[in-house]
Amino acid sequence: MKLQLAIDVLESSEALHLAEVTRESVDIIEIGTPLIKHEGIKLVRTMRENFPDKEILVDLKTMDVGEYESDFCFEAGADIVTVLGAADIKTIVGSVKSARSHGGQVVADLINVPDKLKRAMEVEAVGVDYVGIHTGIDRQQIGATPLADLRALKGKVKLPIVVAGGINLSTIDDIVKLKPEVVVVGSTVASAKNPAEIAQLLKEKLL
Amino acid sequence: MKLQLAIDVLESSEALHLAEVTRESVDIIEIGTPLIKHEGIKLVRTMRENFPDKEILVDLKTMDVGEYESDFCFEAGADIVTVLGAADIKTIVGSVKSARSHGGQVVADLINVPDKLKRAMEVEAVGVDYVGIHTGIDRQQIGATPLADLRALKGKVKLPIVVAGGINLSTIDDIVKLKPEVVVVGSTVASAKNPAEIAQLLKEKLL
Repeated sequence: MKLQLAIDVLESSEALHLAEVTRESVDIIEIGTPLIKHEGIKLVRTMRENFPDKEILVDLKTMDVGEYESDFCFEAGADIVTVLGAADIKTIVGSVKSARSHGGQVVADLINVPDKLKRAMEVEAVGVDYVGIHTGIDRQQIGATPLADLRALKGKVKLPIVVAGGINLSTIDDIVKLKPEVVVVGSTVASAKNPAEIAQLLKEKLL
Repeated sequence: MKLQLAIDVLESSEALHLAEVTRESVDIIEIGTPLIKHEGIKLVRTMRENFPDKEILVDLKTMDVGEYESDFCFEAGADIVTVLGAADIKTIVGSVKSARSHGGQVVADLINVPDKLKRAMEVEAVGVDYVGIHTGIDRQQIGATPLADLRALKGKVKLPIVVAGGINLSTIDDIVKLKPEVVVVGSTVASAKNPAEIAQLLKEKLL
């Protein structure tokens, strides 16, 4: 299992610092959606230069023009981009087309998709690389977690699963039991007094 | 009726040039989704400085953390942001909360929402300012237009309507007959030999 760190701060300097201090434990550095909107593509290039041996994911959450948005991310050095499962299938196809022509990968994020199993099968059919089971931060506020969705899909979906949504040291064990391919953590690391230590403890859970 | 120019080029210099040459005809300058992801929040500030008398819309297409994403756009000078109708209602409520505290407005973009009328009523109930009827570019490739959706919703939805999706000089008349509050044009202007002239001709259709 890989550990992905979702970076949702807004300033590039903070994002780079967070990636630096957690370097030992993190497999995939995620430039979060608010961060890419705030800092732009320049940060993808800087992250690529500073972390040549890490996978870099840009959480585009693309809803339209899948190929156009993915192209400039891959060209800037991203390894993986996301597209919304809620998008039109043509958009998802566009992201996949971009990935294939750049040697990259696509996560279809099922956030707020009503029938996740059906959509997972549809995105698998068009060549998506990972399916994302994702409870958004706004829904975490009312107590929602990705565990039930992960349980519902694991074993039924052939695609590797990326799971995200408020995962921390007290909830990661239940997630790990279901063996998703990638576990995403965010605020539990970013808001820790010692982000490096928390990232390391989380990484140890995945080994 | 207002004319909104969706700017979907990727470089700030091109975006500013396009806004400049169409200044006479455009009411709302839209920083498109790929553009904000490529150039970041700095462009919103520059656009605000250069166009103090225009409305500026950032097409965030927010899918999570509505308040967080909207906050930094309004703080940078945006007048209007978008949130996806496909998002959780808590996310839409977050965008509205941010708008209220900054004196801004929110468009709920119904792109790829299956039951648009139902969702329009739900977003109206939580204080959204405009509903967006929007046929994405990826769907325009297969001949889809926003006209049928506009016909279906106009008169049934109380919220002002923003309509977008491949509108040009040969299709704008049918749109105008239905009297949406805002008509969005994009590539027909950006790809024109003389963008100023096309924008002016489009604007005249709305008067």
